[in-house]
Amino acid sequence: MTIDFSATRALFEIPEGVIYLDGNSLGPLPRAVPARVARTIGAEWGEMLITAWNRAGWMDLPERLGARIGRLIGAEPGSVTLGDTLSVKVFQLLSAALDMRCERRVILSDSGNFPSDLYVAQGLTGMLGPGYELRVAPPEEIEDALDDSVAVLMLTEVDYRTGRRHDMRRLTRAAHHHGALALWDLAHSAGAVPVDLAGCNVDFAAGCTYKYLNAGPGAPAFVYVAPRHAGRIRPALSGWLGHAAPFAFEPQYRPAPGVARMRVGTPPVIQLAALEAALELWEGVEMAEIRAASLVLADRFIAAVEAACPALRLVTPRDPAQRGSQVSFAHPEGYAIMQALIARGVIGDFRAPDILRFGITPLYIGAAEIDRAAAILAEVMAGRLWDAPEYRARARVT
Amino acid sequence: MTIDFSATRALFEIPEGVIYLDGNSLGPLPRAVPARVARTIGAEWGEMLITAWNRAGWMDLPERLGARIGRLIGAEPGSVTLGDTLSVKVFQLLSAALDMRCERRVILSDSGNFPSDLYVAQGLTGMLGPGYELRVAPPEEIEDALDDSVAVLMLTEVDYRTGRRHDMRRLTRAAHHHGALALWDLAHSAGAVPVDLAGCNVDFAAGCTYKYLNAGPGAPAFVYVAPRHAGRIRPALSGWLGHAAPFAFEPQYRPAPGVARMRVGTPPVIQLAALEAALELWEGVEMAEIRAASLVLADRFIAAVEAACPALRLVTPRDPAQRGSQVSFAHPEGYAIMQALIARGVIGDFRAPDILRFGITPLYIGAAEIDRAAAILAEVMAGRLWDAPEYRARARVT
Repeated sequence: MTIDFSATRALFEIPEGVIYLDGNSLGPLPRAVPARVARTIGAEWGEMLITAWNRAGWMDLPERLGARIGRLIGAEPGSVTLGDTLSVKVFQLLSAALDMRCERRVILSDSGNFPSDLYVAQGLTGMLGPGYELRVAPPEEIEDALDDSVAVLMLTEVDYRTGRRHDMRRLTRAAHHHGALALWDLAHSAGAVPVDLAGCNVDFAAGCTYKYLNAGPGAPAFVYVAPRHAGRIRPALSGWLGHAAPFAFEPQYRPAPGVARMRVGTPPVIQLAALEAALELWEGVEMAEIRAASLVLADRFIAAVEAACPALRLVTPRDPAQRGSQVSFAHPEGYAIMQALIARGVIGDFRAPDILRFGITPLYIGAAEIDRAAAILAEVMAGRLWDAPEYRARARVT
Repeated sequence: MTIDFSATRALFEIPEGVIYLDGNSLGPLPRAVPARVARTIGAEWGEMLITAWNRAGWMDLPERLGARIGRLIGAEPGSVTLGDTLSVKVFQLLSAALDMRCERRVILSDSGNFPSDLYVAQGLTGMLGPGYELRVAPPEEIEDALDDSVAVLMLTEVDYRTGRRHDMRRLTRAAHHHGALALWDLAHSAGAVPVDLAGCNVDFAAGCTYKYLNAGPGAPAFVYVAPRHAGRIRPALSGWLGHAAPFAFEPQYRPAPGVARMRVGTPPVIQLAALEAALELWEGVEMAEIRAASLVLADRFIAAVEAACPALRLVTPRDPAQRGSQVSFAHPEGYAIMQALIARGVIGDFRAPDILRFGITPLYIGAAEIDRAAAILAEVMAGRLWDAPEYRARARVT
């Protein structure tokens, strides 16, 4: 089956005059979401009240939607659930990994990882005390930094700034070769590139659903545990909905079978309703097709920008195998340039210190939008249109 | 100012024919919620896209709404924020408390605490290793169980089954007398009874917003840190939005000033929008008035049920000072009795092994509903109407 991208574009609400190249930060609104959320609020919460936990199937939403996401990331059936935020899930997975490799005390990551993953590891190792350590190497040296002291290799597959993509298969194998576990952050992978967790023999993974999966601001995280570990890991952060019998209200924690033990508290039902509607877009979509379309659009954007904007330096790898679904350029005035672009309807984002990021999302971006965005960027650069006080004053969030 | 409860009742959507006595589990839908959520989804997410983080004020929602909740629980300005679930917040607070009292290794709680709090403490002490311990005493013996080995006393103010209320002031003072910190779970307190965190000199507190605060299924938790601690605690679970400069993307975690360091990941904006609308109901409401009305209704319910249903044993303390805003009765057939009640439009809930719970919520329940609920319960008991196969088959969630 071939995706009809002109049809999928119609499934999103994108404001007139906007070219949205920031789906790698917050996906746009799928048209199906408002009605689905209104139904959950009105017909479920409003009408069924507490009984909706059973009658509307709220309690099982995390596993039901986990199964849909699992298909997009190559996960085994029943190995994915939802809840909390990506940082909380990384904390649970890191603590479980250190418990499984209790004779080791090192978490290895790379300096390009998203800072929150590093902060989580710093908080955890700081709490566990002397000997526990977060070791950080440059992305390109990560394989050499692996040794037999490493308990867990924690990497984000696609770099949030540069878009550089790690080789998941190779690095997971290298981690295992040293007796370490492999934990992958899929924030910029799920819905962006094909992922094969089972085929790569990954141990743990987590990701968010508000970027390429378009589930809305603050949508919950997903978490994957390889079936071979799911029956024996101990998540240090263990709450009642990860208990084998939550409504028995037993005084002692007994983990639920499988990945459901990663659940903690009451799931965010309204956000999950938005996610459910957003995931319907992916029915019948093969990630290989998304990937092929994404690479065509990215190459088109790179070629147009490089031809017209010599001052912008491409920081995303040219080799398609080494990149995700975003294109990033560096410029010392990156912040102001992005503000000038946004003022002209081209929405990407800026990441300190000097990165302009553009997310490529074929479900709602086509060649015409790419060409137009590149043309507007060329105008902004050629005319130094970014060099205005209103674009240089920094807001708190971009 | 006196609350006009007939006016506040009109602010909720409650289905025709239903008497809802389960607001202590999931509050009903405030009429203002659907439009507020629709606006956040359509006009903010849909129209503003990523720029809504600034333009629609999403980033500050946790502190803005935390201030409103702070007023209801006697917190100092700027000492409350929102996010995650109650269990995650308890985990953060317990780990911070153990860090502050690093020469001690005991968490003391009571056997009536909500199991998730106990599971969180078990997971944390299990991870920290030998010597760390969750010690559990019966609720009535908790003061005697305090000694100088206790790092933190963790209690839920109002017991989720019996409705028994601890003396926060006295027990906090007793904890401090032994050099321990006091952490209060306010799940069944916030919006139910007056709470005076500052006046009781409490160190830490957390609670949920989907019960008496009516913010909807899976609404986020709130967390309180006493200002005297907020600048120096280290939450072991530390994410990017608790960083002093989240958008600087620094490699090293630096805690934000104050309670904002308890934030972890991206806040659940859609759930927060529902909470914002739900909190508008509380503007101008004094908790003392809610409390007075709640006690009148509870006493009326107790008197009516005890007069008509001798087989039901009151397990909630008769002394108003010793109870929250729920009334519980025990009966060996409690599960079936509750199902029979629900089938007749009186919605309370059941808690294993034998507790019928009824939440008293003057904002939308008055004397007429109380009388009617008691009359229906009397019919169910007198006619053994609960003794039917359809009421005895247990569903997963009640």
